Amino acid sequence: MTEKELKTLLADMTLEEKVDQMNQVAAGMFSGDITAMGPMAAKLYPPEVLARTGSVLGGMGAEALKKLQKEQIEKQPHKIPMLFMLDVINGFKTVYPIPLGQGASFDPELSRECAAMAAEEAAVSGVHVTFAPMTDLVRDARWGRVMESTGEDPYLNSLFCAAMVKGFQGDDLREEGQVAACVKHFAGYGGATAGRDYNTVELSEHTFREFYLRSYEAGVKAGAAMVMTSFNTVNGTPATGNRWLMRRILREEMGFDGVLISDWAAIEEMIPHGYCADRKEAAIRAIRAGVDIDMMTGIYSEQLAKLVKEGTIPESLVDEACLRILTLKNKLGLFENPFKDADEAKEKTVIRSEKHRALAKKAAAESFVLLKNEKKILPLKKTSKIAFVGPYVKSRNLFGSWSFIAEAKDVENLEEALKKVETEENMTFSRGSSVLGTAFKLQGFEESEKEDFTEEEEQVMLEEAVKAAKEAEIVVLAVGEDRLQSGEAASRGFLDLPEVQKRLFDAVTAANENVVTVLFSGRPLDLREVSAKSKALLEVWMPGSEGAAAIVEILFGEQAPQGKLPMSFPYCVGQVPVHYNAYATGRPVTPENARERFHSRYIDIPNQPIYSFGYGLSYTDFEISRIALDREEMKASETIHASVTVKNIGDREGTETLQLYLHDRAASVVRPVKELKGFQKVKLQPGEEKKVTFAITEEMLRFLTEDGVWASEPGAFDLYIGGASNTENQAVFKLTE
Amino acid sequence: MTEKELKTLLADMTLEEKVDQMNQVAAGMFSGDITAMGPMAAKLYPPEVLARTGSVLGGMGAEALKKLQKEQIEKQPHKIPMLFMLDVINGFKTVYPIPLGQGASFDPELSRECAAMAAEEAAVSGVHVTFAPMTDLVRDARWGRVMESTGEDPYLNSLFCAAMVKGFQGDDLREEGQVAACVKHFAGYGGATAGRDYNTVELSEHTFREFYLRSYEAGVKAGAAMVMTSFNTVNGTPATGNRWLMRRILREEMGFDGVLISDWAAIEEMIPHGYCADRKEAAIRAIRAGVDIDMMTGIYSEQLAKLVKEGTIPESLVDEACLRILTLKNKLGLFENPFKDADEAKEKTVIRSEKHRALAKKAAAESFVLLKNEKKILPLKKTSKIAFVGPYVKSRNLFGSWSFIAEAKDVENLEEALKKVETEENMTFSRGSSVLGTAFKLQGFEESEKEDFTEEEEQVMLEEAVKAAKEAEIVVLAVGEDRLQSGEAASRGFLDLPEVQKRLFDAVTAANENVVTVLFSGRPLDLREVSAKSKALLEVWMPGSEGAAAIVEILFGEQAPQGKLPMSFPYCVGQVPVHYNAYATGRPVTPENARERFHSRYIDIPNQPIYSFGYGLSYTDFEISRIALDREEMKASETIHASVTVKNIGDREGTETLQLYLHDRAASVVRPVKELKGFQKVKLQPGEEKKVTFAITEEMLRFLTEDGVWASEPGAFDLYIGGASNTENQAVFKLTE
Repeated sequence: MTEKELKTLLADMTLEEKVDQMNQVAAGMFSGDITAMGPMAAKLYPPEVLARTGSVLGGMGAEALKKLQKEQIEKQPHKIPMLFMLDVINGFKTVYPIPLGQGASFDPELSRECAAMAAEEAAVSGVHVTFAPMTDLVRDARWGRVMESTGEDPYLNSLFCAAMVKGFQGDDLREEGQVAACVKHFAGYGGATAGRDYNTVELSEHTFREFYLRSYEAGVKAGAAMVMTSFNTVNGTPATGNRWLMRRILREEMGFDGVLISDWAAIEEMIPHGYCADRKEAAIRAIRAGVDIDMMTGIYSEQLAKLVKEGTIPESLVDEACLRILTLKNKLGLFENPFKDADEAKEKTVIRSEKHRALAKKAAAESFVLLKNEKKILPLKKTSKIAFVGPYVKSRNLFGSWSFIAEAKDVENLEEALKKVETEENMTFSRGSSVLGTAFKLQGFEESEKEDFTEEEEQVMLEEAVKAAKEAEIVVLAVGEDRLQSGEAASRGFLDLPEVQKRLFDAVTAANENVVTVLFSGRPLDLREVSAKSKALLEVWMPGSEGAAAIVEILFGEQAPQGKLPMSFPYCVGQVPVHYNAYATGRPVTPENARERFHSRYIDIPNQPIYSFGYGLSYTDFEISRIALDREEMKASETIHASVTVKNIGDREGTETLQLYLHDRAASVVRPVKELKGFQKVKLQPGEEKKVTFAITEEMLRFLTEDGVWASEPGAFDLYIGGASNTENQAVFKLTE
Repeated sequence: MTEKELKTLLADMTLEEKVDQMNQVAAGMFSGDITAMGPMAAKLYPPEVLARTGSVLGGMGAEALKKLQKEQIEKQPHKIPMLFMLDVINGFKTVYPIPLGQGASFDPELSRECAAMAAEEAAVSGVHVTFAPMTDLVRDARWGRVMESTGEDPYLNSLFCAAMVKGFQGDDLREEGQVAACVKHFAGYGGATAGRDYNTVELSEHTFREFYLRSYEAGVKAGAAMVMTSFNTVNGTPATGNRWLMRRILREEMGFDGVLISDWAAIEEMIPHGYCADRKEAAIRAIRAGVDIDMMTGIYSEQLAKLVKEGTIPESLVDEACLRILTLKNKLGLFENPFKDADEAKEKTVIRSEKHRALAKKAAAESFVLLKNEKKILPLKKTSKIAFVGPYVKSRNLFGSWSFIAEAKDVENLEEALKKVETEENMTFSRGSSVLGTAFKLQGFEESEKEDFTEEEEQVMLEEAVKAAKEAEIVVLAVGEDRLQSGEAASRGFLDLPEVQKRLFDAVTAANENVVTVLFSGRPLDLREVSAKSKALLEVWMPGSEGAAAIVEILFGEQAPQGKLPMSFPYCVGQVPVHYNAYATGRPVTPENARERFHSRYIDIPNQPIYSFGYGLSYTDFEISRIALDREEMKASETIHASVTVKNIGDREGTETLQLYLHDRAASVVRPVKELKGFQKVKLQPGEEKKVTFAITEEMLRFLTEDGVWASEPGAFDLYIGGASNTENQAVFKLTE
């Protein structure tokens, strides 16, 4: 349709039709499965509202969605197709690593490919829109949704957010295999106080704008068709009813003209928030803020037409929202082809294809971060006698918490992956413990599935594992968080391993001193003990459906690990939030004052995280030269080139990620001590060296000044290039007037 | 002097004279003791600057200060007396409890009396100005300076701040025994990220204004003569150079017309902050923000005259600052009597007088909070066989970290206090352990005094304590933080007892099940273990010079404890910041959804602190009736009276503090789930009951609305009256249009 035709359609629609385009319900509502919504659901969505409903979430499968679309179109006075939306987060049925793991790859292009693959699988299954990417900046490892973010750096997050939007959407949403992306959660959701999900966010406007808003904006600029509101308040007002945030920042400043959708029930939640007295006020607040789609509360369908008729809100607010929804449907080509790419036959060939699984394996391998490798115990030799121990030797739950689409039965576990490719005569496999143990209670998860081991069985598993450990030369200990310990509503006050696995860890490390720990987690954990007692430590996140095969390739050195941490691993939970790009304080700790009292430090723990942002080892070692600058001063129109030579000084091939950080020494607002401004991956053969050059432009020196504009200010800058954020390889240059 | 005479004086002063009035140096500078300042000090303060210097910090003693004043006046071209300033925080040589303990008394009038006592001691010793009260709102127990605050509630903090200002200043600064107060640290210093001292503060402007600014304003409105800048940034700009904060909020909005002083070296620290390139820029930023006195950097003396002469800043900025300083001197009557109350003879009679010590003891006793008292094990019976165990049985370090004025030798320890008043035949006394142990390292405190026990001595002490515990009916275990574990630059990542005391605690609780723990601390600690294994638990903070005698009176029931927590004690460090007056979330945890997943909670720890704000037991029990309202609706001009009847249902006299909390159910910004709005202390004999009534006025319903004004909004309010912030004794009323 042309824009004009869309407007003609809009003009022809009744008020109720327009309002119900703004209504979104779960797919189950149409099949009569309203149990998930409780007894109120039927009342909220009478048949005529359901018949006019503009979009559906949670449905998948070409056959089912085509049938539903067909039936619904018949019921619609103007035959308007519905939008089918789904949480396609890190994959569809082929699952790639959780976003935090993708962040560790420092390879946005790879994430673009992964998103494109997920889009293809989702599209043939009838899905039009995914609720991804999530690009909330995260600094507090207690928050369960750090797993859904690409980390603590606004620049890195921006690259990933834009890449994922491009991957999902391609160049044209009408094209086959593309789905619309939804940048979420706007805005600042990652700043939840005390890491408790849905909690208040306290940020100065300066930090909110400069750190937290940037990657959402990158997603908007990359053309994201949709944005989702966040659950939290921004400066005292829930995001979903926050006109300043949605009208001024999102629409005016960022220029977003797509569809704004509430998060699940977020419009109604403005009532318990104490921001709205009732559903009527919630409807008014949300529509005034410019929220186009009401996810799962029925408030718009119930209230908006009445509010227009009584003159409380102008019909133009409904019109603009409805037009944005119709426009998205049109961009997806649904008026011409309401089924888009839904195709039962292609579901069989596209989903979990060889190509897709290979990409997922590649993405998994690139996401792993080698945190420690004493005496180069890794890679493993096939001739060694190795005991594989731990619940993750057997577990298929490698998806992370967004795992309702893929099926664990399709997943190879570590034992199977190992048996497939390696001689197993020297290997033993033992579970050692369950993931959570019999005593463990995940509050709020009482109804979730549980592993079913008795105390006695746990004891037997432990003894078998210790025996295996004693008899082996090397133990590979595959331990970590349960998939439900991270993700939404999975905030933690402790960042350690489950008790039952700590017991296993202690017993195994006491039985054998050559322990290689393979750590599965959705967040940075407190690794003091694990790191101290392991000879090697490989963080594999939640690696996805092909994770086990990737781990085997890395462990045995078919390829070397190359991941870098996208989020600092705190020394302990008492140190959070800790992140590399902190603002300078007036009393920094320096080597000179390390033994003095009145500096910004703790008296009992270090200021530094145990593993910093950007950190990660390879199987080989790299030597990075001092920085060479082609000039030491630049005007705004000029460029400085900063170079280092990086050399592989080990005896294996490896990839190093050179990272460029800048620090503005004095500015009209306090600046971070370091900010990532660029990175380059370099693959080197043993003995090979390469010159790596970064171009420093004035644009890279800009920040939100005291006048509230993005600009640079003349003065001195520190420049760092190294293999981690805590590099001391530094140079100085000046920006002149 | 009249205002006119002051202006005449100002007009007659040279630029350098005026600038040096704005300079403050340590008293040691005049005696040649510049070691504390390093080798640069002499350069920063040439003799002519020192001769003209307007104020001095850190000096005390009538004789010394009178001599110094006399000499300096001789050197001054206009014979202007100096101001002598000192950190008189919780007492002078008579030390009352740390401010956090005072907060627990819920008795601002008592703190006023204590401040007046401290002012009297300081004044006879020659001091003119104290750097108190500190009224930073605190929510994070990791921050060491929570000990200097009265807690997490803006209303309570406001009452205490105003009371302390009144206590120090009286009605007229010229009167005998009064010193000028300095409200600090302006503003928001208590919000240090991750509880790390001097760290960045992230707060939305809404929260900053509504929660953090209120008690400073109360101090200003109470007439505080001085305000001190804070070390932290506010919205990206260091407070000391923050014009918006100092000019608009402090001067214009709050109407402060007194002297604004930088914190120690805070002007210079804008350089490491990265906010100023050099000392020149720091001078410009600070004077433009309206900072009148430069504490300890010499930047003003070095830079300001030059800056005026070169035209960078107008001389009027210097004039206004200098006039404010002269005005303060005049208010103190220094032009007529430059020595004010300094009096060697009175030092002997006033300081540590019987009256003062009695007041300090009263204040200590009122500050103690009884957290647990199973089977009414407390009060102790004199006939019981009691083992007093723990380092705080012997320690005299009961002052808290601001202890450089008072002397430990003057302090009675717990053993001495006990022996003085109780029959000791049934009592044993053993140290059990040192406070910190031989292995403990307080980072940054390497040069501090250390207890000098060997490992072997520790072992002997432990064994003696266990033996004593085994032989006793009851053990009183006096344990806690070292005085240097809290206070400035004493942030902690762990909130537990020192390892050596944990060992003692474990051994003693294993040896005797009737353990009464007396806990010394400058902050809320993680009390899970201590609370679980103690039959009774009495928090005594850092109780001051008369603390031991007060503890004895409470332990043996001469009076009952009555303190209430002014700050929540977190369940564990992974829960901070936790405070009772949190904003409502959209997904609150309720009894109904306690087993469901998607609510604002942790999966491994509770949302509630282990002990909540406002909580504290007596030796008796109280029954509080349901709330009776005289009406359920009110207009803005009307008042609702809410009453409860409180009855002493135990067999001992006791004091209960009835607390009134309100909650605005729906407002134009999200409101806290509860806010303290009033409290009343009620002393009741056994069986006695009393009706307690609170008047609810429209003023109590005001808050900072979405329009940025303080106003109330019609609607429903929850009202709670009870003995702690987690009371469920609730009623509902309405404010109508």
